[in-house]
Amino acid sequence: MRCVLVDPYATRNLHRLDRPGAAWNFVCVAHDDSPVRLADALGTADAAIAQGWDAELAHYAPHLRLLQLPNAGTDGVDWSVIPQGCIVANAFGHAIPIAEFTLLAMLEIRIGVRQLDTTIRKGDWSLSHRTFGPTHGEVSGATVGIVGFGRIGKAIAARARAFDMAVIAVSRTRPEDPSMLAWSGSMDALEEMLPRCDFLVIACPLTESTRNLIDARRLALLPPGAVIINVARGEIINEAALFDELKSGRLGGAALDVWWRYPSAADPAPLPFHCPFDTLPNVLMSPHVSAWTEAMLARRWSEVADNLDRFARGLPLRNTVHRDQR
Amino acid sequence: MRCVLVDPYATRNLHRLDRPGAAWNFVCVAHDDSPVRLADALGTADAAIAQGWDAELAHYAPHLRLLQLPNAGTDGVDWSVIPQGCIVANAFGHAIPIAEFTLLAMLEIRIGVRQLDTTIRKGDWSLSHRTFGPTHGEVSGATVGIVGFGRIGKAIAARARAFDMAVIAVSRTRPEDPSMLAWSGSMDALEEMLPRCDFLVIACPLTESTRNLIDARRLALLPPGAVIINVARGEIINEAALFDELKSGRLGGAALDVWWRYPSAADPAPLPFHCPFDTLPNVLMSPHVSAWTEAMLARRWSEVADNLDRFARGLPLRNTVHRDQR
Repeated sequence: MRCVLVDPYATRNLHRLDRPGAAWNFVCVAHDDSPVRLADALGTADAAIAQGWDAELAHYAPHLRLLQLPNAGTDGVDWSVIPQGCIVANAFGHAIPIAEFTLLAMLEIRIGVRQLDTTIRKGDWSLSHRTFGPTHGEVSGATVGIVGFGRIGKAIAARARAFDMAVIAVSRTRPEDPSMLAWSGSMDALEEMLPRCDFLVIACPLTESTRNLIDARRLALLPPGAVIINVARGEIINEAALFDELKSGRLGGAALDVWWRYPSAADPAPLPFHCPFDTLPNVLMSPHVSAWTEAMLARRWSEVADNLDRFARGLPLRNTVHRDQR
Repeated sequence: MRCVLVDPYATRNLHRLDRPGAAWNFVCVAHDDSPVRLADALGTADAAIAQGWDAELAHYAPHLRLLQLPNAGTDGVDWSVIPQGCIVANAFGHAIPIAEFTLLAMLEIRIGVRQLDTTIRKGDWSLSHRTFGPTHGEVSGATVGIVGFGRIGKAIAARARAFDMAVIAVSRTRPEDPSMLAWSGSMDALEEMLPRCDFLVIACPLTESTRNLIDARRLALLPPGAVIINVARGEIINEAALFDELKSGRLGGAALDVWWRYPSAADPAPLPFHCPFDTLPNVLMSPHVSAWTEAMLARRWSEVADNLDRFARGLPLRNTVHRDQR
């Protein structure tokens, strides 16, 4: 059987697919390969490993029976071009590093070690307790509201609880283990949750119903001083509304790992925002790397390999995604 | 009864002592006040609140019956000048912020959000997963060895375990609740613990037996890549030996909140080290502030107030320190 890996995010990890290698014939292509090359590679493909699927790829791969994403987000998939009967599956393994990153962000926004480090390494003791410098904060006793209580939300909750934080959440499906939550509700209950959040963590998929979910009206429901952490997708939060709330000083801070602007062929190094977030204090920025660990890649590609193996042996696949789950 | 508060670290917090005010007459002095002023204030003092006690203060306070430290470390106390029968007590309330700071340090050394932030805010995506930048690490699965398993050690252990870290410890006294530890031993077992530590956290008091405890020979017992976090006192680690191990690249990093050099009247803004730690990568520095939160001060001075109240009413005090505990 033939499996085509599309673009570097997949092809760079071909070496991780040794396990199901016996049953599969792997071919690597790039989205911008020639039509002849794409037609040749995809024409007889049974499976593809790609971050997304569009009309062009679909055109060349009429016999596709499995689209295996090497990542979790399905927002790169144009479902209208997925052949009938083709299975779509995604991959995880990222809950641990995203939860670790989220706790780091919470702690850093309360403590501010970046500035502490910058000053003391120059012999400036003005932020020390020895000079009665400003105190920092604690996360203990804070309430964390999580939007989306899937694998990531659960991993965040387990860690936050060890810091004596109360965890509340809204999610599409009822939490399997609600014992770790002080309160939970459906996505419709978001506006009920927001006024209780010292930290609001966005950990849900980007779908048509979550795009622009955190808009000006909902941001205004957060209490003064609340901190927003986004480890999901930029477009879930309205950029201008968040900027205004941070600029006015009503919100206490934000940790943004995901953005409204990304590198493209036309603009390989854009600022990640349209509004000048870099002029604000207490915004912690990172370039969409919360999950980016070697251990995550190993776990994730182990899931991909397992699914290819299951497909070849006619077994049910893991992590299948259905159109109506979007 | 008269209680004298000595120096700003105590006197700035007088307003927190409203509770036992009825029984006590509070007087504030500074170490460098005139002899007349010190003699007048301390001559009839029953109690003092001070970070330390030396021959000069002792000379002026012959009737002292209680030295209440507004902090935990007793390394500022010259025990040879404490009058016989005088109770010495310290104060805590700092385990929560020190544990939060320690976890922040561990996560930051594995993830490196300082550099992620600095680059992306300028539109530099070279550390992003989008450009296949370098992966960062996880704390999950790591082993944390803690030296000193008192209040701080326990608070660190509870949090580290939620990150799926294994926690091991050596301590002067047997842990009351060893269930959170994968292994524990007496201080004599330190050398048995060191080879197992991905993180080594120093969380013991500075005493004659812990000064220079982590010397070149013991540092060499840590595995390659191990990370040291010191939230106790600088002098517990041999400065030159730590510098050498970091400079050679054998150790993976260090987070240093406590130092070998501090501000003094003669040198109010020294570099906090003698060896050039600022030239090393992966050293996270902070100016002795791991506990420095408003909530810590509130908890700590509540303990101080409670002890003054108990003393006035002839009740047993909390957190008394004995000479032989040093």
